Amino acid sequence: MVYRQTEARVQKDGELRERILKLALGRVADAGFAALTMQTLADDAGIATGSLYRHFRGKGELAAEVFSRASQREVDALAEVLATPASATARLSDGLRQFAARAWDSRQLAFALIAEPVDPEVDEQRLVYREAYAALFVQLLEQGIAHGEFPSQPVHLIAACLVGAIAEALVGPLSPPARAGRDAGLSNPSLEDVSDALVHFCLRAVGAPLPVPEDQP
Amino acid sequence: MVYRQTEARVQKDGELRERILKLALGRVADAGFAALTMQTLADDAGIATGSLYRHFRGKGELAAEVFSRASQREVDALAEVLATPASATARLSDGLRQFAARAWDSRQLAFALIAEPVDPEVDEQRLVYREAYAALFVQLLEQGIAHGEFPSQPVHLIAACLVGAIAEALVGPLSPPARAGRDAGLSNPSLEDVSDALVHFCLRAVGAPLPVPEDQP
Repeated sequence: MVYRQTEARVQKDGELRERILKLALGRVADAGFAALTMQTLADDAGIATGSLYRHFRGKGELAAEVFSRASQREVDALAEVLATPASATARLSDGLRQFAARAWDSRQLAFALIAEPVDPEVDEQRLVYREAYAALFVQLLEQGIAHGEFPSQPVHLIAACLVGAIAEALVGPLSPPARAGRDAGLSNPSLEDVSDALVHFCLRAVGAPLPVPEDQP
Repeated sequence: MVYRQTEARVQKDGELRERILKLALGRVADAGFAALTMQTLADDAGIATGSLYRHFRGKGELAAEVFSRASQREVDALAEVLATPASATARLSDGLRQFAARAWDSRQLAFALIAEPVDPEVDEQRLVYREAYAALFVQLLEQGIAHGEFPSQPVHLIAACLVGAIAEALVGPLSPPARAGRDAGLSNPSLEDVSDALVHFCLRAVGAPLPVPEDQP
């Protein structure tokens, strides 16, 4: 009986942990990591703050886990597009457009993941996930070079450049000031503007053939 | 007399503040923001921790000021190269090579500035300084387009891509694991590898003529 009680307790704990993480992700998606505090999250979950601390040692650990779950979802979505049988050029272009569109659909979450100033534990995870994205691009670059689509190039360094370019292209348009300006009707780039610029930049950067004629001045 | 005493006190305070900031920068350059604590810094300066708190409200504020001073030096150095009378292509290439070389010369500091997980106050400053770098590239891109060196392109978005690519190309090779590997004799990119990859990536990305023939497979 003791054993079965323990098993039931472990399962109940696991379920509560899942529920807490879903609520936490919802908070971050709505208002960024700044809105994630142990007190408000405990209130959301209808548990005592002390119980929450049994599951997460603190805000930093919780934020890091919310970050890595949300980021893994994006890495998986990108990996899926990059694994289709199209040319490396088409896969890069499609992957970039999907990544930008997903970020655009959840701007607060995307900004929180990419650049919101937050606990060092999340910064640690940012470095880890940037390496996960880079690994996907290394593979794609190697395939594109092998098939003669891209010139030979140091794939690890170029993959890092791609990861940085993508993150930074989105940080500006996704940042709270840019979003406030857009809401106030000021001119700000659209998703199409950002996607087009990013695709052109990255395809040119890796030496891929461009999908549309250049707009030469 | 009261007035002159106050003036002398203000000057003395300013001098101590300068001395503290120099010591703090030295610590970060040696061992990153992780090595910057109020206690050790007070010891370095030979003052009581309480006196240090009179100058800086806490580690976050101090780290942010060290960050912005060190970053402004890099922005100024890049601005100087970009303001020479050479072609936009040559200035971009020279600016990138100088930026990478300066980072390589002070790897611990460069990694601390670009990517070390640290207080949110520093993350805030990172966003501010990325905009300062982007503004320099916007100007260069506009000049290059006006002189027919680069095709027409959305300069603000492309400048953001450049800033991201540069930071990310350096984070990998500058990160503590990569430096440890290099020290242990493992194969890791050299400064020349990183500079060459970065220059090729960025020149191709903005549609500039490449300085050397492509190594086509």
